[in-house]
Amino acid sequence: MASYFSSSPEEFGEDILKTNYVHGYDNQEKIRLQDQASTLVELLHSDTSYPAGSRILEAGCGVGAQTITLARNSPGALITSVDISELSLAEAKQKTLDTGLTNVSFEKADIFNLHYGKDAFDHVFLCFVLEHLPAPAEALNALKKVLRKGGTITVIEGDHGSAYFHPDSEAARKAIQCQIELQRRAGGNALIGRELYPLLIKAGYDSVRVSPRMVYVDASRPELVEGFIKRTFTAMIEGVRESALKAGLAKAEDFGKGIQDLYRTAESDGVFCYTFFKAIGIKR
Amino acid sequence: MASYFSSSPEEFGEDILKTNYVHGYDNQEKIRLQDQASTLVELLHSDTSYPAGSRILEAGCGVGAQTITLARNSPGALITSVDISELSLAEAKQKTLDTGLTNVSFEKADIFNLHYGKDAFDHVFLCFVLEHLPAPAEALNALKKVLRKGGTITVIEGDHGSAYFHPDSEAARKAIQCQIELQRRAGGNALIGRELYPLLIKAGYDSVRVSPRMVYVDASRPELVEGFIKRTFTAMIEGVRESALKAGLAKAEDFGKGIQDLYRTAESDGVFCYTFFKAIGIKR
Repeated sequence: MASYFSSSPEEFGEDILKTNYVHGYDNQEKIRLQDQASTLVELLHSDTSYPAGSRILEAGCGVGAQTITLARNSPGALITSVDISELSLAEAKQKTLDTGLTNVSFEKADIFNLHYGKDAFDHVFLCFVLEHLPAPAEALNALKKVLRKGGTITVIEGDHGSAYFHPDSEAARKAIQCQIELQRRAGGNALIGRELYPLLIKAGYDSVRVSPRMVYVDASRPELVEGFIKRTFTAMIEGVRESALKAGLAKAEDFGKGIQDLYRTAESDGVFCYTFFKAIGIKR
Repeated sequence: MASYFSSSPEEFGEDILKTNYVHGYDNQEKIRLQDQASTLVELLHSDTSYPAGSRILEAGCGVGAQTITLARNSPGALITSVDISELSLAEAKQKTLDTGLTNVSFEKADIFNLHYGKDAFDHVFLCFVLEHLPAPAEALNALKKVLRKGGTITVIEGDHGSAYFHPDSEAARKAIQCQIELQRRAGGNALIGRELYPLLIKAGYDSVRVSPRMVYVDASRPELVEGFIKRTFTAMIEGVRESALKAGLAKAEDFGKGIQDLYRTAESDGVFCYTFFKAIGIKR
Protein backbone atom coordinates (compact mmCIF):
# COMPACT_ATOMS: atom_id res chain seq x y z
CA MET A 1 0.00 0.00 0.00
CA ALA A 2 1.64 3.21 -1.16
CA SER A 3 1.89 5.78 1.61
CA TYR A 4 2.34 9.47 1.11
CA PHE A 5 3.32 9.60 4.75
CA SER A 6 5.90 6.99 4.02
CA SER A 7 8.11 7.75 6.98
CA SER A 8 6.27 5.99 9.74
CA PRO A 9 8.19 6.22 13.00
CA GLU A 10 9.82 2.83 12.55
CA GLU A 11 10.79 3.36 8.91
CA PHE A 12 11.88 6.77 9.90
CA GLY A 13 14.18 5.29 12.54
CA GLU A 14 15.73 3.06 9.92
CA ASP A 15 15.98 5.95 7.52
CA ILE A 16 17.86 7.88 10.13
CA LEU A 17 20.32 5.07 10.59
CA LYS A 18 20.93 4.79 6.86
CA THR A 19 21.34 8.52 6.52
CA ASN A 20 23.70 8.57 9.43
CA TYR A 21 25.80 5.93 7.81
CA VAL A 22 25.89 7.80 4.50
CA HIS A 23 26.57 11.17 6.07
CA GLY A 24 29.02 9.76 8.55
CA TYR A 25 27.53 11.37 11.64
CA ASP A 26 29.46 10.75 14.80
CA ASN A 27 28.24 8.30 17.36
CA GLN A 28 26.68 10.82 19.73
CA GLU A 29 24.57 12.27 16.94
CA LYS A 30 23.55 8.76 15.96
CA ILE A 31 22.41 7.95 19.48
CA ARG A 32 20.47 11.20 19.70
CA LEU A 33 18.66 10.50 16.46
CA GLN A 34 17.88 6.95 17.53
CA ASP A 35 16.43 8.39 20.72
CA GLN A 36 14.24 10.61 18.61
CA ALA A 37 12.90 7.73 16.53
CA SER A 38 12.24 5.95 19.82
CA THR A 39 10.35 9.01 21.03
CA LEU A 40 7.84 8.76 18.18
CA VAL A 41 7.51 4.99 18.49
CA GLU A 42 6.98 5.49 22.22
CA LEU A 43 4.42 8.24 21.60
CA LEU A 44 2.31 6.09 19.28
CA HIS A 45 2.87 2.51 20.38
CA SER A 46 4.02 2.28 24.00
CA ASP A 47 0.52 1.70 25.36
CA THR A 48 -0.30 -1.13 22.95
CA SER A 49 0.60 -4.52 24.35
CA TYR A 50 -1.40 -7.72 23.97
CA PRO A 51 -1.40 -10.68 26.37
CA ALA A 52 0.46 -13.90 25.65
CA GLY A 53 -1.55 -16.30 23.54
CA SER A 54 -3.89 -13.67 22.15
CA ARG A 55 -4.56 -13.69 18.42
CA ILE A 56 -3.83 -10.35 16.77
CA LEU A 57 -4.67 -9.24 13.25
CA GLU A 58 -2.50 -6.47 11.86
CA ALA A 59 -4.50 -5.20 8.89
CA GLY A 60 -2.59 -3.52 6.07
CA CYS A 61 0.92 -4.14 7.39
CA GLY A 62 2.52 -2.80 4.20
CA VAL A 63 6.30 -3.27 4.33
CA GLY A 64 6.12 -4.02 8.05
CA ALA A 65 6.92 -0.55 9.37
CA GLN A 66 4.74 -1.07 12.46
CA THR A 67 4.94 -4.85 12.59
CA ILE A 68 8.28 -5.01 14.39
CA THR A 69 7.20 -2.62 17.13
CA LEU A 70 3.90 -4.44 17.47
CA ALA A 71 5.60 -7.84 17.75
CA ARG A 72 8.25 -6.55 20.17
CA ASN A 73 5.65 -5.02 22.49
CA SER A 74 3.64 -8.25 22.63
CA PRO A 75 6.22 -11.04 22.49
CA GLY A 76 3.75 -13.73 23.56
CA ALA A 77 0.95 -12.75 21.19
CA LEU A 78 0.32 -14.55 17.90
CA ILE A 79 0.32 -11.87 15.23
CA THR A 80 -1.11 -12.30 11.75
CA SER A 81 -0.04 -9.42 9.53
CA VAL A 82 -1.90 -9.09 6.26
CA ASP A 83 -1.63 -6.89 3.21
CA ILE A 84 -3.00 -6.93 -0.31
CA SER A 85 0.43 -6.47 -1.88
CA GLU A 86 2.65 -9.55 -2.14
CA LEU A 87 5.66 -7.34 -2.76
CA SER A 88 5.10 -5.43 0.47
CA LEU A 89 4.48 -8.66 2.37
CA ALA A 90 7.77 -10.12 1.16
CA GLU A 91 9.62 -7.04 2.41
CA ALA A 92 7.75 -7.08 5.71
CA LYS A 93 8.57 -10.76 6.18
CA GLN A 94 12.26 -10.28 5.50
CA LYS A 95 12.43 -7.27 7.80
CA THR A 96 10.79 -9.23 10.61
CA LEU A 97 13.03 -12.25 10.11
CA ASP A 98 16.08 -9.98 10.22
CA THR A 99 15.14 -8.83 13.70
CA GLY A 100 14.76 -12.40 14.95
CA LEU A 101 11.06 -12.05 15.82
CA THR A 102 9.14 -15.30 15.47
CA ASN A 103 5.61 -14.41 16.60
CA VAL A 104 4.37 -12.99 13.29
CA SER A 105 2.93 -14.79 10.29
CA PHE A 106 2.36 -12.92 7.03
CA GLU A 107 -0.58 -13.61 4.76
CA LYS A 108 -2.02 -12.01 1.68
CA ALA A 109 -5.52 -10.70 2.33
CA ASP A 110 -7.94 -7.99 1.30
CA ILE A 111 -9.34 -6.08 4.28
CA PHE A 112 -12.70 -5.81 2.54
CA ASN A 113 -12.89 -9.52 1.85
CA LEU A 114 -11.15 -11.41 4.62
CA HIS A 115 -11.03 -15.19 4.48
CA TYR A 116 -10.89 -15.59 8.27
CA GLY A 117 -13.79 -16.99 10.25
CA LYS A 118 -16.00 -15.23 12.74
CA ASP A 119 -14.16 -14.58 16.01
CA ALA A 120 -10.82 -15.52 14.46
CA PHE A 121 -9.01 -12.74 16.32
CA ASP A 122 -8.94 -11.36 19.84
CA HIS A 123 -7.70 -7.96 18.73
CA VAL A 124 -7.24 -5.98 15.54
CA PHE A 125 -4.56 -3.35 14.95
CA LEU A 126 -4.10 -0.97 12.03
CA CYS A 127 -1.81 2.00 11.61
CA PHE A 128 -1.63 4.48 8.70
CA VAL A 129 -4.03 2.33 6.66
CA LEU A 130 -7.47 4.00 6.73
CA GLU A 131 -6.00 7.21 5.28
CA HIS A 132 -5.60 5.39 1.95
CA LEU A 133 -9.04 3.78 1.72
CA PRO A 134 -12.02 5.27 -0.11
CA ALA A 135 -14.38 3.49 2.32
CA PRO A 136 -12.74 3.47 5.77
CA ALA A 137 -15.95 2.81 7.71
CA GLU A 138 -16.65 -0.25 5.57
CA ALA A 139 -13.11 -1.50 6.23
CA LEU A 140 -13.68 -1.14 9.97
CA ASN A 141 -16.94 -2.99 9.60
CA ALA A 142 -15.32 -5.84 7.66
CA LEU A 143 -12.65 -6.15 10.35
CA LYS A 144 -15.32 -6.36 13.03
CA LYS A 145 -16.56 -9.60 11.53
CA VAL A 146 -13.35 -11.49 12.26
CA LEU A 147 -13.01 -9.97 15.75
CA ARG A 148 -14.42 -11.86 18.72
CA LYS A 149 -16.96 -10.21 21.02
CA GLY A 150 -15.17 -8.25 23.72
CA GLY A 151 -12.10 -7.87 21.52
CA THR A 152 -10.58 -4.48 20.72
CA ILE A 153 -9.64 -2.62 17.59
CA THR A 154 -6.76 -0.10 17.72
CA VAL A 155 -6.41 2.46 14.94
CA ILE A 156 -3.61 5.01 14.53
CA GLU A 157 -3.71 7.78 11.91
CA GLY A 158 -2.10 11.15 11.28
CA ASP A 159 -3.91 14.32 10.22
CA HIS A 160 -2.08 16.75 7.94
CA GLY A 161 -4.56 19.49 8.82
CA SER A 162 -3.12 19.35 12.33
CA ALA A 163 0.19 20.74 11.07
CA TYR A 164 0.88 24.36 11.99
CA PHE A 165 4.13 26.14 12.58
CA HIS A 166 6.10 29.28 13.22
CA PRO A 167 6.91 31.28 11.21
CA ASP A 168 3.50 30.77 9.67
CA SER A 169 3.52 30.71 5.85
CA GLU A 170 0.72 30.66 3.33
CA ALA A 171 3.04 29.08 0.76
CA ALA A 172 3.84 26.24 3.16
CA ARG A 173 0.16 25.73 3.93
CA LYS A 174 -0.58 25.60 0.20
CA ALA A 175 2.17 23.04 -0.41
CA ILE A 176 0.68 20.83 2.32
CA GLN A 177 -2.71 21.35 0.70
CA CYS A 178 -1.30 19.88 -2.54
CA GLN A 179 -0.45 16.65 -0.70
CA ILE A 180 -3.90 16.55 0.91
CA GLU A 181 -5.58 17.09 -2.47
CA LEU A 182 -3.47 14.43 -4.22
CA GLN A 183 -4.27 11.90 -1.51
CA ARG A 184 -7.96 12.81 -1.84
CA ARG A 185 -7.82 12.26 -5.61
CA ALA A 186 -6.21 8.87 -4.98
CA GLY A 187 -9.27 7.96 -2.90
CA GLY A 188 -7.68 8.60 0.48
CA ASN A 189 -8.03 11.17 3.25
CA ALA A 190 -4.99 12.89 4.76
CA LEU A 191 -7.23 14.52 7.38
CA ILE A 192 -8.61 11.26 8.73
CA GLY A 193 -7.04 11.45 12.20
CA ARG A 194 -9.73 13.78 13.50
CA GLU A 195 -12.44 11.46 12.15
CA LEU A 196 -11.50 8.28 14.00
CA TYR A 197 -14.19 8.67 16.64
CA PRO A 198 -17.18 8.98 14.28
CA LEU A 199 -15.72 6.30 11.96
CA LEU A 200 -15.45 3.70 14.72
CA ILE A 201 -18.89 4.60 16.05
CA LYS A 202 -20.35 4.35 12.53
CA ALA A 203 -18.79 0.90 12.13
CA GLY A 204 -20.55 -0.21 15.31
CA TYR A 205 -17.71 -0.31 17.83
CA ASP A 206 -18.46 0.42 21.45
CA SER A 207 -16.71 2.38 24.23
CA VAL A 208 -14.65 4.22 21.63
CA ARG A 209 -11.88 6.37 23.13
CA VAL A 210 -9.58 8.57 21.06
CA SER A 211 -6.35 9.98 22.38
CA PRO A 212 -4.46 12.57 20.37
CA ARG A 213 -0.66 12.26 20.31
CA MET A 214 0.79 15.64 19.56
CA VAL A 215 4.33 16.08 18.31
CA TYR A 216 5.56 19.50 19.41
CA VAL A 217 8.95 20.57 18.09
CA ASP A 218 11.11 23.58 18.93
CA ALA A 219 14.86 24.14 19.06
CA SER A 220 15.08 22.57 22.51
CA ARG A 221 14.28 19.22 20.83
CA PRO A 222 16.96 19.03 18.11
CA GLU A 223 16.31 15.34 17.39
CA LEU A 224 12.73 16.16 16.40
CA VAL A 225 13.79 19.25 14.44
CA GLU A 226 16.01 17.07 12.30
CA GLY A 227 13.96 13.91 12.39
CA PHE A 228 10.40 15.11 12.33
CA ILE A 229 10.29 18.58 10.72
CA LYS A 230 12.94 17.95 8.08
CA ARG A 231 13.20 14.25 7.38
CA THR A 232 9.63 13.19 8.01
CA PHE A 233 7.06 15.89 7.38
CA THR A 234 8.81 18.26 4.99
CA ALA A 235 10.41 15.35 3.10
CA MET A 236 6.94 13.86 2.66
CA ILE A 237 5.48 17.09 1.27
CA GLU A 238 8.55 17.57 -0.91
CA GLY A 239 7.95 14.06 -2.23
CA VAL A 240 4.74 15.08 -4.00
CA ARG A 241 6.36 17.97 -5.89
CA GLU A 242 6.25 16.34 -9.32
CA SER A 243 2.72 15.00 -8.89
CA ALA A 244 1.47 18.36 -7.64
CA LEU A 245 3.01 20.25 -10.54
CA LYS A 246 1.80 17.68 -13.05
CA ALA A 247 -1.74 17.91 -11.65
CA GLY A 248 -1.58 21.69 -11.93
CA LEU A 249 -2.13 22.13 -8.19
CA ALA A 250 0.76 24.56 -7.82
CA LYS A 251 3.37 26.49 -9.78
CA ALA A 252 6.93 25.24 -9.36
CA GLU A 253 8.03 28.51 -7.81
CA ASP A 254 5.19 28.61 -5.27
CA PHE A 255 5.64 24.98 -4.29
CA GLY A 256 9.37 25.57 -3.89
CA LYS A 257 8.68 28.56 -1.64
CA GLY A 258 6.34 26.38 0.46
CA ILE A 259 9.01 23.73 0.96
CA GLN A 260 11.57 26.41 1.77
CA ASP A 261 9.22 27.86 4.38
CA LEU A 262 8.68 24.43 5.92
CA TYR A 263 12.46 24.02 6.28
CA ARG A 264 12.52 27.53 7.73
CA THR A 265 10.48 26.27 10.70
CA ALA A 266 13.44 24.02 11.58
CA GLU A 267 15.66 27.02 12.36
CA SER A 268 16.46 28.02 15.92
CA ASP A 269 13.38 30.24 16.36
CA GLY A 270 11.01 27.87 14.55
CA VAL A 271 8.23 25.73 15.97
CA PHE A 272 6.31 22.83 14.42
CA CYS A 273 3.18 21.02 15.60
CA TYR A 274 1.59 17.83 14.29
CA THR A 275 -0.92 15.45 15.84
CA PHE A 276 -1.49 11.72 15.45
CA PHE A 277 -4.69 10.14 16.71
CA LYS A 278 -5.03 6.75 18.36
CA ALA A 279 -8.46 5.22 18.77
CA ILE A 280 -9.55 2.09 20.59
CA GLY A 281 -12.98 0.50 20.33
CA ILE A 282 -14.56 -2.69 21.61
CA LYS A 283 -16.80 -5.15 19.77
CA ARG A 284 -19.84 -5.90 21.93
CA MET B 1 -7.62 44.10 29.16
CA ALA B 2 -10.29 43.17 26.64
CA SER B 3 -10.04 39.55 25.59
CA TYR B 4 -11.53 38.08 22.46
CA PHE B 5 -11.03 34.73 24.10
CA SER B 6 -13.04 36.01 27.01
CA SER B 7 -14.08 32.64 28.34
CA SER B 8 -10.97 31.57 30.14
CA PRO B 9 -11.52 28.25 31.89
CA GLU B 10 -12.31 29.88 35.23
CA GLU B 11 -14.70 32.48 33.81
CA PHE B 12 -16.12 29.74 31.73
CA GLY B 13 -16.79 27.68 34.86
CA GLU B 14 -18.66 30.60 36.35
CA ASP B 15 -20.49 31.18 33.12
CA ILE B 16 -21.61 27.59 33.17
CA LEU B 17 -22.98 27.98 36.68
CA LYS B 18 -24.88 31.13 35.74
CA THR B 19 -26.28 29.52 32.63
CA ASN B 20 -27.28 26.48 34.58
CA TYR B 21 -29.16 28.65 36.99
CA VAL B 22 -30.95 30.48 34.20
CA HIS B 23 -31.73 27.38 32.22
CA GLY B 24 -32.63 25.37 35.27
CA TYR B 25 -30.52 22.35 34.46
CA ASP B 26 -30.90 19.50 36.86
CA ASN B 27 -28.25 18.78 39.43
CA GLN B 28 -26.54 15.96 37.58
CA GLU B 29 -26.05 18.13 34.52
CA LYS B 30 -24.70 20.89 36.74
CA ILE B 31 -22.13 18.57 38.29
CA ARG B 32 -21.07 17.31 34.90
CA LEU B 33 -20.53 20.82 33.60
CA GLN B 34 -18.61 21.80 36.72
CA ASP B 35 -16.41 18.76 36.14
CA GLN B 36 -15.77 19.99 32.64
CA ALA B 37 -14.70 23.46 33.79
CA SER B 38 -12.43 21.71 36.28
CA THR B 39 -10.99 19.66 33.44
CA LEU B 40 -9.77 22.77 31.62
CA VAL B 41 -8.49 24.42 34.80
CA GLU B 42 -6.71 21.16 35.58
CA LEU B 43 -5.29 20.95 32.07
CA LEU B 44 -3.78 24.44 32.20
CA HIS B 45 -3.03 25.11 35.84
CA SER B 46 -2.64 21.90 37.85
CA ASP B 47 1.15 21.86 37.52
CA THR B 48 1.62 25.46 38.67
CA SER B 49 2.13 25.71 42.41
CA TYR B 50 4.52 28.04 44.21
CA PRO B 51 6.13 27.45 47.62
CA ALA B 52 4.92 29.18 50.78
CA GLY B 53 6.48 32.59 51.23
CA SER B 54 7.45 33.03 47.58
CA ARG B 55 6.62 36.35 45.95
CA ILE B 56 4.57 35.94 42.76
CA LEU B 57 3.73 38.58 40.19
CA GLU B 58 0.61 37.91 38.15
CA ALA B 59 0.97 40.26 35.20
CA GLY B 60 -2.20 41.39 33.44
CA CYS B 61 -4.69 39.75 35.78
CA GLY B 62 -7.66 41.42 34.06
CA VAL B 63 -10.88 40.65 35.94
CA GLY B 64 -9.14 37.91 37.90
CA ALA B 65 -10.16 34.94 35.78
CA GLN B 66 -6.90 33.09 36.56
CA THR B 67 -6.15 34.76 39.87
CA ILE B 68 -8.42 32.56 41.95
CA THR B 69 -6.96 29.33 40.57
CA LEU B 70 -3.45 30.70 40.99
CA ALA B 71 -4.09 31.71 44.61
CA ARG B 72 -5.83 28.42 45.44
CA ASN B 73 -2.98 26.33 44.04
CA SER B 74 -0.38 28.27 46.06
CA PRO B 75 -2.09 29.13 49.34
CA GLY B 76 1.15 30.09 51.09
CA ALA B 77 2.53 32.27 48.29
CA LEU B 78 2.25 36.06 48.32
CA ILE B 79 0.62 37.01 45.04
CA THR B 80 0.66 40.49 43.55
CA SER B 81 -1.81 40.72 40.69
CA VAL B 82 -1.45 43.75 38.46
CA ASP B 83 -3.38 45.21 35.56
CA ILE B 84 -3.47 48.51 33.74
CA SER B 85 -7.26 48.81 34.06
CA GLU B 86 -8.63 49.98 37.40
CA LEU B 87 -12.07 48.74 36.45
CA SER B 88 -10.79 45.23 35.84
CA LEU B 89 -8.76 45.33 39.05
CA ALA B 90 -11.83 46.28 41.07
CA GLU B 91 -13.71 43.31 39.64
CA ALA B 92 -10.78 40.97 40.22
CA LYS B 93 -10.47 42.17 43.82
CA GLN B 94 -14.16 41.66 44.56
CA LYS B 95 -14.12 38.21 42.95
CA THR B 96 -11.14 37.17 45.04
CA LEU B 97 -12.62 38.55 48.26
CA ASP B 98 -15.83 36.65 47.54
CA THR B 99 -13.93 33.36 47.52
CA GLY B 100 -12.30 34.15 50.86
CA LEU B 101 -8.75 34.10 49.50
CA THR B 102 -6.39 36.41 51.38
CA ASN B 103 -3.02 35.85 49.72
CA VAL B 104 -3.50 38.25 46.79
CA SER B 105 -2.94 42.00 46.63
CA PHE B 106 -4.10 43.95 43.60
CA GLU B 107 -2.17 46.89 42.22
CA LYS B 108 -2.43 49.06 39.15
CA ALA B 109 0.65 48.70 36.98
CA ASP B 110 1.78 48.82 33.37
CA ILE B 111 3.74 45.71 32.36
CA PHE B 112 6.04 47.83 30.20
CA ASN B 113 6.80 50.26 33.00
CA LEU B 114 6.73 48.42 36.30
CA HIS B 115 7.44 50.34 39.48
CA TYR B 116 8.85 47.31 41.31
CA GLY B 117 12.53 47.00 42.13
CA LYS B 118 15.06 44.55 40.73
CA ASP B 119 14.50 41.04 42.13
CA ALA B 120 11.14 42.05 43.62
CA PHE B 121 9.59 38.70 42.66
CA ASP B 122 10.54 35.04 42.85
CA HIS B 123 8.22 34.04 40.03
CA VAL B 124 6.14 35.68 37.31
CA PHE B 125 2.90 34.27 35.90
CA LEU B 126 0.83 35.48 32.95
CA CYS B 127 -2.07 33.86 31.16
CA PHE B 128 -3.92 35.08 28.04
CA VAL B 129 -2.04 38.40 28.17
CA LEU B 130 0.67 38.33 25.48
CA GLU B 131 -1.95 37.66 22.78
CA HIS B 132 -3.14 41.26 23.21
CA LEU B 133 0.23 43.02 23.18
CA PRO B 134 1.85 44.55 20.10
CA ALA B 135 5.30 43.91 21.62
CA PRO B 136 5.14 40.62 23.55
CA ALA B 137 8.91 40.04 23.63
CA GLU B 138 9.44 43.50 25.15
CA ALA B 139 6.81 42.73 27.79
CA LEU B 140 8.65 39.52 28.69
CA ASN B 141 11.86 41.50 28.88
CA ALA B 142 10.33 44.13 31.17
CA LEU B 143 9.03 41.39 33.45
CA LYS B 144 12.49 39.86 33.64
CA LYS B 145 13.79 43.00 35.34
CA VAL B 146 11.63 42.53 38.41
CA LEU B 147 12.32 38.77 38.58
CA ARG B 148 15.15 37.50 40.77
CA LYS B 149 17.90 35.36 39.29
CA GLY B 150 16.88 31.72 39.33
CA GLY B 151 13.20 32.67 39.35
CA THR B 152 10.75 31.35 36.76
CA ILE B 153 8.29 32.86 34.35
CA THR B 154 5.18 30.88 33.37
CA VAL B 155 3.22 31.90 30.29
CA ILE B 156 -0.05 30.37 29.04
CA GLU B 157 -1.60 31.26 25.69
CA GLY B 158 -4.07 29.79 23.21
CA ASP B 159 -3.58 29.56 19.44
CA HIS B 160 -6.64 29.90 17.23
CA GLY B 161 -4.74 28.40 14.31
CA SER B 162 -4.65 25.17 16.30
CA ALA B 163 -8.42 24.79 15.91
CA TYR B 164 -9.53 22.10 13.48
CA PHE B 165 -12.62 19.99 13.44
CA HIS B 166 -14.89 17.46 11.78
CA PRO B 167 -16.83 18.02 9.65
CA ASP B 168 -14.24 20.34 8.19
CA SER B 169 -15.69 23.58 6.82
CA GLU B 170 -14.13 26.39 4.82
CA ALA B 171 -16.83 28.78 6.07
CA ALA B 172 -15.96 27.94 9.67
CA ARG B 173 -12.26 28.41 9.01
CA LYS B 174 -12.98 31.79 7.42
CA ALA B 175 -15.09 32.90 10.39
CA ILE B 176 -12.21 32.01 12.73
CA GLN B 177 -9.91 33.91 10.38
CA CYS B 178 -12.07 37.03 10.93
CA GLN B 179 -11.38 36.85 14.67
CA ILE B 180 -7.64 36.34 14.05
CA GLU B 181 -7.56 39.31 11.67
CA LEU B 182 -9.49 41.60 14.06
CA GLN B 183 -7.15 40.72 16.91
CA ARG B 184 -4.19 41.41 14.63
CA ARG B 185 -5.61 44.83 13.71
CA ALA B 186 -6.05 45.56 17.42
CA GLY B 187 -2.30 44.96 17.82
CA GLY B 188 -2.59 41.42 19.16
CA ASN B 189 -1.80 37.93 17.91
CA ALA B 190 -4.35 35.12 18.19
CA LEU B 191 -1.73 32.63 16.95
CA ILE B 192 0.78 33.41 19.69
CA GLY B 193 0.64 30.00 21.43
CA ARG B 194 3.00 28.41 18.93
CA GLU B 195 5.46 31.31 19.35
CA LEU B 196 6.06 31.07 23.09
CA TYR B 197 9.37 29.27 22.74
CA PRO B 198 11.08 31.81 20.46
CA LEU B 199 9.51 34.71 22.39
CA LEU B 200 10.92 33.59 25.72
CA ILE B 201 14.31 32.85 24.16
CA LYS B 202 14.34 36.27 22.50
CA ALA B 203 13.57 37.90 25.84
CA GLY B 204 16.62 36.18 27.32
CA TYR B 205 15.06 33.45 29.44
CA ASP B 206 16.94 30.20 29.90
CA SER B 207 15.98 26.50 29.96
CA VAL B 208 12.72 27.33 28.21
CA ARG B 209 10.32 24.38 28.01
CA VAL B 210 6.96 24.52 26.26
CA SER B 211 4.24 21.96 26.79
CA PRO B 212 1.18 21.97 24.56
CA ARG B 213 -2.18 21.29 26.25
CA MET B 214 -4.54 19.95 23.68
CA VAL B 215 -8.30 19.96 24.16
CA TYR B 216 -9.77 17.09 22.17
CA VAL B 217 -13.55 16.90 22.06
CA ASP B 218 -15.86 14.24 20.66
CA ALA B 219 -19.31 12.99 21.66
CA SER B 220 -17.82 10.79 24.38
CA ARG B 221 -16.97 14.00 26.26
CA PRO B 222 -20.36 15.78 26.42
CA GLU B 223 -19.18 18.33 29.02
CA LEU B 224 -16.55 19.58 26.58
CA VAL B 225 -18.96 19.50 23.62
CA GLU B 226 -21.26 21.84 25.50
CA GLY B 227 -18.67 23.77 27.43
CA PHE B 228 -15.76 24.08 25.03
CA ILE B 229 -17.08 23.79 21.45
CA LYS B 230 -20.32 25.70 21.99
CA ARG B 231 -19.96 28.02 24.96
CA THR B 232 -16.27 28.83 24.73
CA PHE B 233 -14.84 28.65 21.23
CA THR B 234 -17.87 29.13 18.99
CA ALA B 235 -19.34 31.74 21.33
CA MET B 236 -16.07 33.65 21.11
CA ILE B 237 -16.02 33.60 17.30
CA GLU B 238 -19.73 34.49 17.23
CA GLY B 239 -18.85 37.43 19.47
CA VAL B 240 -16.90 39.19 16.72
CA ARG B 241 -19.74 39.00 14.17
CA GLU B 242 -20.57 42.73 14.21
CA SER B 243 -16.93 43.82 14.16
CA ALA B 244 -16.12 41.42 11.33
CA LEU B 245 -19.04 42.60 9.19
CA LYS B 246 -18.31 46.25 9.97
CA ALA B 247 -14.66 45.77 8.97
CA GLY B 248 -15.80 44.13 5.73
CA LEU B 249 -13.98 40.89 6.56
CA ALA B 250 -17.00 38.73 5.75
CA LYS B 251 -20.51 38.85 4.37
CA ALA B 252 -23.26 38.28 6.94
CA GLU B 253 -24.41 35.12 5.19
CA ASP B 254 -20.94 33.58 4.99
CA PHE B 255 -20.13 34.42 8.59
CA GLY B 256 -23.44 32.93 9.66
CA LYS B 257 -22.66 29.75 7.75
CA GLY B 258 -19.27 29.58 9.48
CA ILE B 259 -20.85 29.80 12.92
CA GLN B 260 -23.46 27.24 11.94
CA ASP B 261 -20.70 24.88 10.81
CA LEU B 262 -18.83 25.37 14.09
CA TYR B 263 -21.97 24.39 16.01
CA ARG B 264 -22.30 21.44 13.62
CA THR B 265 -19.04 20.02 15.03
CA ALA B 266 -20.85 19.69 18.38
CA GLU B 267 -23.23 17.07 17.00
CA SER B 268 -22.82 13.38 17.81
CA ASP B 269 -20.42 12.66 14.93
CA GLY B 270 -18.44 15.88 15.34
CA VAL B 271 -14.91 16.37 16.63
CA PHE B 272 -13.12 19.52 17.76
CA CYS B 273 -9.43 20.13 18.54
CA TYR B 274 -7.76 23.15 20.12
CA THR B 275 -4.38 23.58 21.77
CA PHE B 276 -3.16 25.85 24.54
CA PHE B 277 0.56 26.29 25.14
CA LYS B 278 2.27 26.62 28.48
CA ALA B 279 5.86 27.81 28.63
CA ILE B 280 8.26 28.04 31.55
CA GLY B 281 11.60 29.83 31.49
CA ILE B 282 14.25 30.67 34.09
CA LYS B 283 16.11 33.92 34.59
CA ARG B 284 19.84 33.18 34.89
